[in-house]
Amino acid sequence: MPIQAPRHIGTDLAGVIASDRVLTDASSLARYSHDRADWADFTEPLAVVLVTSAEEVSAVVRYARDQGIKIVPRGTGTGLSGGANGVPDCIVLSLELMTQVVELNPAERYAVVQAGMINDDVRAAAATVGLWYPPDPASSAISTIGGNAATNAGGICCVKYGVTRDYVLGMEVVLADGDIVQLGRRTAKGATGYDLTGLMVGSEGTLGIITEVTVKLLPLTGRGERAIVGYFPSLAAAGTAVAEVSRAGIIPAALELVDRTCLHAVSAWQGVDLPEDADTLLLAKIDEPGARGEELSQQLAGIFRAAGGADVQQSADSAETDRLFQARRLAYPALERLGPVLTEDICVPRGAVPAMLASIQETAARHCVVIANIAHAGDGNLHPLIIAPEGDLEVKDRAKLAFDEIIARCLHLGGTVTGEHGVGLLKLPGAAVELGERVGRMHHAVKDSLDPEHLFNPGKAFS
Amino acid sequence: MPIQAPRHIGTDLAGVIASDRVLTDASSLARYSHDRADWADFTEPLAVVLVTSAEEVSAVVRYARDQGIKIVPRGTGTGLSGGANGVPDCIVLSLELMTQVVELNPAERYAVVQAGMINDDVRAAAATVGLWYPPDPASSAISTIGGNAATNAGGICCVKYGVTRDYVLGMEVVLADGDIVQLGRRTAKGATGYDLTGLMVGSEGTLGIITEVTVKLLPLTGRGERAIVGYFPSLAAAGTAVAEVSRAGIIPAALELVDRTCLHAVSAWQGVDLPEDADTLLLAKIDEPGARGEELSQQLAGIFRAAGGADVQQSADSAETDRLFQARRLAYPALERLGPVLTEDICVPRGAVPAMLASIQETAARHCVVIANIAHAGDGNLHPLIIAPEGDLEVKDRAKLAFDEIIARCLHLGGTVTGEHGVGLLKLPGAAVELGERVGRMHHAVKDSLDPEHLFNPGKAFS
Repeated sequence: MPIQAPRHIGTDLAGVIASDRVLTDASSLARYSHDRADWADFTEPLAVVLVTSAEEVSAVVRYARDQGIKIVPRGTGTGLSGGANGVPDCIVLSLELMTQVVELNPAERYAVVQAGMINDDVRAAAATVGLWYPPDPASSAISTIGGNAATNAGGICCVKYGVTRDYVLGMEVVLADGDIVQLGRRTAKGATGYDLTGLMVGSEGTLGIITEVTVKLLPLTGRGERAIVGYFPSLAAAGTAVAEVSRAGIIPAALELVDRTCLHAVSAWQGVDLPEDADTLLLAKIDEPGARGEELSQQLAGIFRAAGGADVQQSADSAETDRLFQARRLAYPALERLGPVLTEDICVPRGAVPAMLASIQETAARHCVVIANIAHAGDGNLHPLIIAPEGDLEVKDRAKLAFDEIIARCLHLGGTVTGEHGVGLLKLPGAAVELGERVGRMHHAVKDSLDPEHLFNPGKAFS
Repeated sequence: MPIQAPRHIGTDLAGVIASDRVLTDASSLARYSHDRADWADFTEPLAVVLVTSAEEVSAVVRYARDQGIKIVPRGTGTGLSGGANGVPDCIVLSLELMTQVVELNPAERYAVVQAGMINDDVRAAAATVGLWYPPDPASSAISTIGGNAATNAGGICCVKYGVTRDYVLGMEVVLADGDIVQLGRRTAKGATGYDLTGLMVGSEGTLGIITEVTVKLLPLTGRGERAIVGYFPSLAAAGTAVAEVSRAGIIPAALELVDRTCLHAVSAWQGVDLPEDADTLLLAKIDEPGARGEELSQQLAGIFRAAGGADVQQSADSAETDRLFQARRLAYPALERLGPVLTEDICVPRGAVPAMLASIQETAARHCVVIANIAHAGDGNLHPLIIAPEGDLEVKDRAKLAFDEIIARCLHLGGTVTGEHGVGLLKLPGAAVELGERVGRMHHAVKDSLDPEHLFNPGKAFS
């Protein structure tokens, strides 16, 4: 039973939130009831509130606390782990309308943006002053910077440039008592007090609601763009190439792997011809400019060939690079044509990538499910994509078994259950094993210290 | 009155800690009673315990908790803010004997080292397998990796390569109940749970005792070493050069500033001839290899000259680079000859460096104290060095007034009271202003959640 009837929330918040931004119609409640992880549990919210300022967030927080209602914060709901799925008796608080650049400071190389700003828009705004925001999750065209910060989102360029955490200097956060605080700094360095900014990054909305993010930017200039791609006869051969790149001391700006299942799905969909014996595709980028970039690109192509790579192509032209990376970009939509996709996000030691991929193939065969793999191979971050044909409930059960087995194997290999998507709901059991009982208790202690009434996103991120 | 007579601690810990590692003699108690910030308050400990394992740390923690004794953890005591100064009724727990490499993993590019290992020794160990540990505090020859992590130490190469926080992947920590936990990960990426590793970094020993640190390493190869130095006729001219370097999108591997007072102290001590009108020295490093490095070096030298830099020299030879950086290296010892040095560690927006330095000169003149400046100019991180001739108590009072004024001015300019040394005791009032009351309360809540009895380093890092 809801504590508060949905239709009252708009009335209760009248004078604080414009009535057209408090949604209680059936279609909105359904639409906002989960992110892209509808494999995980979700409950329809009592209401959806579209906020436009930290002050409005604060008012909703105080109201919810008074009423004993929970708050599930979200951006555009592109999460893949259920972090924004509705919980019983909750308001879904969406920051998607908070899309403004608050400050863009070229001299100090930072931007202050509202939490609902789309990742690509942050990058575009930075580019207008010759600066670059590196973190590039696959969802960059549709996911928000606040959600990226809340989940510590990664991406393709992380192998060289790091993840969201590495670019968040500070933030504005609404706390569980409704107070609005500024955390972090805008200077290049700083060591004052606990890193509460870093604690908020990746906390999946369980400690406070991020309303504004200050991100560090890099110079846009001085980088080249060279692509190197090669087809390998086996996962093992591609794994050897990845290990050799690392051993040579090369840190590419991207090092992606696309497996046979993905390649054939793209080929079948787009009519792309694959080289004979093509089993695994590796795609790399080198962004050192000039002669150094050319030298590294040649060296990388040589490593690809030595490891058995065929049809190795190099490009220093951005249109050609885009074409070469096409198979990577089309993999996910090509697979979605085959049925709902359950996305894994494990990260194992780089050297364990071939063993992990082999184990995934074995798991797929044993449970009679299709599992395709896209991997940020240079980071050891794998995305096994488990495909269950629509409506086949029994396949869905087998998919979940495969999912659990992959996580167990990843932990056995010294890996982590989430490289960049967050724990949400889907990874709760794996996270509990990974963290262990004592570190789990530390999580509860920290949660209780900052959100004693468990107002924010209860039941997410840790169990 | 001490809760426990010092001479009992050795007896009490017999069977757990070898008796020769429990020090209670007057000389040891005096020696371990403070770090390099003897300007701050300190109290002699009841005993000094030199531990050799996490299990020993755990035993001391449980003992201290039972006895109501506080614990002040420390490495080699090179801190400059009083973070390791003794507090009433405490054991100083030193990790300086824990100096082993636990694991060095070239394939995954990380090292696991005990907390007492010296920073330079970590770098040397990494180099044996072709890898590099970047963070390079000025104390790198004498400070420990555990202390570096506890204070989030910086250094010269931070402007390009980041601070200690950016290299700590995980750690072993002894908690306030004596439990030993592993935090973080050894994979390249990871987003499982709260970033408790990051919370420990910079927490100055107030949340747990770090016994082991897992650090990320970079390839050692692929970097050149070019130095560019120039003398400027004024702080303003040097400030213009720093701003122009940033505007050009160049991120040098070092960009250091040495002011007139330092230059003249070095010149007087070493008989180094200074160019006529030399007021401020800028020293830069460029580490891109090959033609790109040469191009950037030329570009930087051009910016120096255009901003009024005289005697601009470039070097691509490491011995010559060392010679050019000599004035930077000798500045601190040259100043220490003039009297005890009170070291500031403010960080302001890069663009505010000239205004901050001008304000410092004005403060020095008004309080009739000598203040020299070394600055990580590329980061806006300034080290005003306030010199008080030995024995002159009145000068010491004026020095403290100047110290407080500099901090107030730094905050007014949007800066932070500590860029890389930590708050310790010296920066407590400034940190309170910087964090504000509500964020201060968040600190207390987090502290209480992980160290409810305030066993670890009470009264440090935040007030």
